[in-house]
Amino acid sequence: MIKVVFFDLDDTIVDTSKLAEMARRNAIENMVRHGLPVDFDTTYHELRELINEYGSNFGRHFDYLLRRLDLPYDPKWVAAGVIAYHNTKFAHLTSVKGTRKVLLELKREGLSLGIITDGNPIKQWEKILRLELDDYFDAVFISDFVGVKKPHPKIFKKALGRFNAEPHEALMVGDRLYSDIYGAKNVGMKTVWFKYGKYANRELDYLEYADFTINSLEDVLNIVRRLTSEGEKRSDKEVHAD
Amino acid sequence: MIKVVFFDLDDTIVDTSKLAEMARRNAIENMVRHGLPVDFDTTYHELRELINEYGSNFGRHFDYLLRRLDLPYDPKWVAAGVIAYHNTKFAHLTSVKGTRKVLLELKREGLSLGIITDGNPIKQWEKILRLELDDYFDAVFISDFVGVKKPHPKIFKKALGRFNAEPHEALMVGDRLYSDIYGAKNVGMKTVWFKYGKYANRELDYLEYADFTINSLEDVLNIVRRLTSEGEKRSDKEVHAD
Repeated sequence: MIKVVFFDLDDTIVDTSKLAEMARRNAIENMVRHGLPVDFDTTYHELRELINEYGSNFGRHFDYLLRRLDLPYDPKWVAAGVIAYHNTKFAHLTSVKGTRKVLLELKREGLSLGIITDGNPIKQWEKILRLELDDYFDAVFISDFVGVKKPHPKIFKKALGRFNAEPHEALMVGDRLYSDIYGAKNVGMKTVWFKYGKYANRELDYLEYADFTINSLEDVLNIVRRLTSEGEKRSDKEVHAD
Repeated sequence: MIKVVFFDLDDTIVDTSKLAEMARRNAIENMVRHGLPVDFDTTYHELRELINEYGSNFGRHFDYLLRRLDLPYDPKWVAAGVIAYHNTKFAHLTSVKGTRKVLLELKREGLSLGIITDGNPIKQWEKILRLELDDYFDAVFISDFVGVKKPHPKIFKKALGRFNAEPHEALMVGDRLYSDIYGAKNVGMKTVWFKYGKYANRELDYLEYADFTINSLEDVLNIVRRLTSEGEKRSDKEVHAD
């Protein structure tokens, strides 16, 4: 019997990678428009490399991009990039297809909902509040606020504690096999791997920790219903066995 | 004879204080909406005090606001503030009334235009580019990029050097008597104090350094024309005297 469903945030209920990709392209287009003396393709390729090396949360992408392109530092170009990047992020932030339907149905069926995510607390809350997703969730756990990162068991245990739930009463849905699936399974939760976004083909070593694999977020509903009816059958049996 | 006109940025050609005020009010409204357990007026008063003490460019306004209100840190409230603050800044950024007319006319009359401003280079360029003001200006001098702050003579001299202009061939227009007017007068420029925004009644000790005081930005045109015709008369006289 599932009592609570936890969701990861990025690329599980918020379409982050797609948005970041769009934002980066628009940023470079605006930098070139404002005089950056390198063509779009070369610059974009360089930025992709940079992000692979330094990670997507590195705070100085545009500074380093200029250095890599052997260009002098010009705050005008950086500003052009920043403007287009932010405009895109604000204008095109969207939830993953099916998110609202899944959340609404789960709420209607009486389940509690939570978010367990890594990342900067203010930036993560910004996404939640901009999309007005906050009312669906009873609790939000963000690792840089809690002080523990997925897949460490502590963040999952804290989340369970908040709902007075046993591990087997909780379902974790996420796009990352390592941090979401391996992490949640480790504490005994049921796990749903959402094969979506840039991690759809990564970390496959941890595939064995996924109880379910889905390609559409809406499949979460079927899984919850199945687990619930199985739970009911089992407790029926237990009653009969008495 | 005036060859080049320099403008300060904030509260001279970009309506910064008005916008910041609006953005702060909207930020607090959104924080209260998302559960901040203090009323709007108390919170707003506290934020005003904080800004007076720490300055408007302090990066941790919302964190400190929560501390001052004896509230626990909640990234959700900070995010709510940040979102409304940014939304307002992006949606309502405007140039000061008359700016485009003045810039266009000055360009049409063959003058060179520059910006001399304090502040963060990327943030200042963001305002210039978002308002698409960059095409009017031949050069932009931002103190945190140049490494010298107004009223230090060096930033004004650098600007003059860029245009090969003598000090008396340059006009500086700004809202701050100390950094803009006293600073520019010190190197020998002509000075126009734009009595506007929150500095309209401050730093009056430096009023003597203003050659002109205006209440509307459009008055810059009359001043430039008057200085130009006076210059022509004077050189006529010089010719006759030969």
